[in-house]
Amino acid sequence: MERILTGDRPTGPLHLGHYAGSLRNRVKLQDTCDTFIIIADVQGLTTHWETPEMIKVHSREVALDNIAAGLDPERVRIFLQSMVPQIAELTVFFGLFVTVNRLRHNPTIKTEARQYGYTDMTYGFLGYPVSQAADILFCRADLVPVGEDQLPHMEVTRFVARRFNELYGPVFPEPKALVSEVSRLAGLDGGAKMSKSLGNAIYLKDGPEEVSAKVMSAVTDPARIRKNDPGHPEVCTVFSWHKAFNPGEVPEIETSCRAGSIGCVACKKNLAAVLNRLLDPIRERRAAYDRPGVVEEILGAGTGAARLEGEATMEKVREAMKIDYFGGGS
Amino acid sequence: MERILTGDRPTGPLHLGHYAGSLRNRVKLQDTCDTFIIIADVQGLTTHWETPEMIKVHSREVALDNIAAGLDPERVRIFLQSMVPQIAELTVFFGLFVTVNRLRHNPTIKTEARQYGYTDMTYGFLGYPVSQAADILFCRADLVPVGEDQLPHMEVTRFVARRFNELYGPVFPEPKALVSEVSRLAGLDGGAKMSKSLGNAIYLKDGPEEVSAKVMSAVTDPARIRKNDPGHPEVCTVFSWHKAFNPGEVPEIETSCRAGSIGCVACKKNLAAVLNRLLDPIRERRAAYDRPGVVEEILGAGTGAARLEGEATMEKVREAMKIDYFGGGS
Repeated sequence: MERILTGDRPTGPLHLGHYAGSLRNRVKLQDTCDTFIIIADVQGLTTHWETPEMIKVHSREVALDNIAAGLDPERVRIFLQSMVPQIAELTVFFGLFVTVNRLRHNPTIKTEARQYGYTDMTYGFLGYPVSQAADILFCRADLVPVGEDQLPHMEVTRFVARRFNELYGPVFPEPKALVSEVSRLAGLDGGAKMSKSLGNAIYLKDGPEEVSAKVMSAVTDPARIRKNDPGHPEVCTVFSWHKAFNPGEVPEIETSCRAGSIGCVACKKNLAAVLNRLLDPIRERRAAYDRPGVVEEILGAGTGAARLEGEATMEKVREAMKIDYFGGGS
Repeated sequence: MERILTGDRPTGPLHLGHYAGSLRNRVKLQDTCDTFIIIADVQGLTTHWETPEMIKVHSREVALDNIAAGLDPERVRIFLQSMVPQIAELTVFFGLFVTVNRLRHNPTIKTEARQYGYTDMTYGFLGYPVSQAADILFCRADLVPVGEDQLPHMEVTRFVARRFNELYGPVFPEPKALVSEVSRLAGLDGGAKMSKSLGNAIYLKDGPEEVSAKVMSAVTDPARIRKNDPGHPEVCTVFSWHKAFNPGEVPEIETSCRAGSIGCVACKKNLAAVLNRLLDPIRERRAAYDRPGVVEEILGAGTGAARLEGEATMEKVREAMKIDYFGGGS
């Protein structure tokens, strides 16, 4: 059974963009793959080092979001990055043979540095791809589901695995990226991607009325003034959401929209109903697991399992790197 | 009792330059300070990642050099950096708030990069000062004996301690640099500093004949052709070594040299005798400890003690950074 490593930075609650882009896929993959879900709290701190209490709160929330979305805590290991010291050890070791130029020219690092408005960046931020390689390789994962924007990071991980094996002997698989089919979901305001900071997102934890109200406020085709004007689905946010969450009805909606035979209000009401049908079982699972100590227990067990994997990996690493001084692991 | 952290990168056997510059001082300090000696094998790998077996061999040798020089393994803790995972964890955490520019403009990093002929450098090499801050702060050391060239690194350590305390609460002391009085010992070839790679060094483990032969080949005052020519001690390597290891005789040697009343051969024979008197007890202690398993046991005990300190520190760090999820350490 191939092993998958995937996860989230706990910087905010997960929304439908995450669901369409990755969670939905994870839920399917758990049936055929041995799944590890990382709650990347240390990587959360690379951009939020001044508000650690926020990262702590969201770590629990994001774990709950994953469980609510359908990941079975009996089968998948959900764990906290900061509680697996072997990830930090591998970050340090991998940093020995990844050059600064390789990191500085990484397109994702460049884009994100621009996004955050950094004129300088922290050492940890520059090392994000090295740390990600450690996240993936500490459990010797074979597959990593990623968005297209993460492909440059995956190349660093593959380079690290290859280079380590060349230098010290075969320890790591060279993991493959599993690029998600669904591209980025547009925000409700029509333009940019869905994002907490832009306030244009529907969260997995939103209630039914909140979802309806957000959908009703969504931007559609600005050229369509009256209900019977012919619409242009290709520029309509609501239509793009139908494509992501309601593919069965898409041909019919497209035809009626272009013909002007369905109005935007009706089309939005339909979408809101579709989303709430999708979210209802997610809400039920959330309610079932959101009790004191339950998420903590799941995280505790997942982290324990992750550490065991980390220890097994470090044993191989120490042997290969000749730093197994007393025949012991870390 | 104040705590001291000091140590060596195990990239080769220790020589009299190390002895004059730091070992001698360490031996004195162990009487008044709680002493931790780090065998910085991971930092050794930052420049020698392609030859890890060499680092492993020298790790044992350097530990033995320290013991032979007079560090009492019953009192000081000699430990292996790579076996203390909390150092790696702190390196990752400290990297969150040290900027790349602060590291790139570090004069020691610049000089060393030039020395090694790096046009690019590895992420680990750039992060050397961050990793050194973790070496010092994992055991909450108060004092760090350093050479002047290491002062910029110490400034990074002090910055890290200050910044961490500001951001998350008072966890770390702001350690002080204890600058060693003896400046760099010249190499036997007269010019550059003593260094393994230049082949101009006397090692702590060299035998008496080897020491004599090396001293006899040393460069003295090139203007002094005949024995009775007046000498210029200020340009003479042998004289600078008398200053470092034979201070009591220095005024007399200086006078006779300038007067041309002592020849270079006699002066060198005197120095060789002085050095061998210094090295004799070091050789004896080496022989006593250089038995199978003895150094390993000392390193094992020292590393165990270092890990306990690391765990205690990480408990404070996790609490301060709000990543003490299950009330446990690492």
